[in-house]
Amino acid sequence: MKSARHRKDRVVLDTSLFVNPEVRNDFGDNPTEAIKGFLLIAGQIPALEFYMPSSIFQELLNFVNEKDIPGALLAILHQKAPGKHELTTPAFFLYELIEDIRERINKGLRIAERAVRNASKSDEREVIQSMRKNYREALREGIIDSKEDVDLILLAKELDALLVTVDHGAIKWAEKLGIRWLLPSKFKDYLLSFIESEKQESAAPSKTKNPSKA
Amino acid sequence: MKSARHRKDRVVLDTSLFVNPEVRNDFGDNPTEAIKGFLLIAGQIPALEFYMPSSIFQELLNFVNEKDIPGALLAILHQKAPGKHELTTPAFFLYELIEDIRERINKGLRIAERAVRNASKSDEREVIQSMRKNYREALREGIIDSKEDVDLILLAKELDALLVTVDHGAIKWAEKLGIRWLLPSKFKDYLLSFIESEKQESAAPSKTKNPSKA
Repeated sequence: MKSARHRKDRVVLDTSLFVNPEVRNDFGDNPTEAIKGFLLIAGQIPALEFYMPSSIFQELLNFVNEKDIPGALLAILHQKAPGKHELTTPAFFLYELIEDIRERINKGLRIAERAVRNASKSDEREVIQSMRKNYREALREGIIDSKEDVDLILLAKELDALLVTVDHGAIKWAEKLGIRWLLPSKFKDYLLSFIESEKQESAAPSKTKNPSKA
Repeated sequence: MKSARHRKDRVVLDTSLFVNPEVRNDFGDNPTEAIKGFLLIAGQIPALEFYMPSSIFQELLNFVNEKDIPGALLAILHQKAPGKHELTTPAFFLYELIEDIRERINKGLRIAERAVRNASKSDEREVIQSMRKNYREALREGIIDSKEDVDLILLAKELDALLVTVDHGAIKWAEKLGIRWLLPSKFKDYLLSFIESEKQESAAPSKTKNPSKA
């Protein structure tokens, strides 16, 4: 007899898994191949359910031609937005977010002031380019800064799922909400471990059925 | 017999009522006088309970000498922080906040770029001063941008209270959470209406006791 199946565990995926060259290579050389590589493995793991917020799926379509998306992806990777009108977040989350943003806004102003002071000494275009980079880093990195980011962490929260993303902002705020997370670089190994234990599980009962006599 | 007293209605106050010269004058010529003026009226209204977040009360102490604060203020104006670890906010609130901030951040960068381009043409100090003003307006006005602001709206939410503030950010986000609010310029009239109806109420029963015969 097979051991009783636990409730399926859930995984919420970011696009980075398929799009970001640094982490995608585990699955394929380009986004379309990475999707196929993922499907090949994911299809063998009945113990896991995979989700992607609809908004994140739309982002994926900027990298993959819609015609090239295998039908199986829609069956295995469920698209679902979080229930934004039912879900709630703890109030302390709001405090930490507002405090974080407030500091970043002050930092952004100091960056701008420095750029104005440099404008007369250096090439204007270079000053603006460097300011843009510093400003974006100061105001956007390590924070949830788009509704897609909010979708990711809230969907993971709603489903009590494992969040797979490289986004530092999403990871930081997922931690505040007690959401499990995994870096995509470890994700293939994570998936393969399920296939491995699945194999061991199907081997084990046959031993029970036909116990070898010592 | 007096009519049954309803549950006391609650009011959450911002410092602006006592500090902001434009709205304070209803109660007194300076913050200390405004506090005394408020107490004189508030003490006559048993139907209302008054609250101020502790953080906002601390702000008030920047304008009023602690020694000048009448003991009655501590009895009539309750200091209380919201229960930030029990309270929750709806998820859509988080979406709207993040979207709002994202647009403001982009606007801030455009303001900074414009300033860098003007730096060579105009006086550097003037450019920086004007940039600071525009930047702060773009990133801070009409948004909750401090933990004191969050305290205000969450305390009003927790107590199901009327929020009295001039802060546009607090008003805008209070509306999203279904919190009642009132501009301080109308607050004195609001209070006086309670005293007025209190008088009428105490006049009415005597009529019932001794109905005049037609």
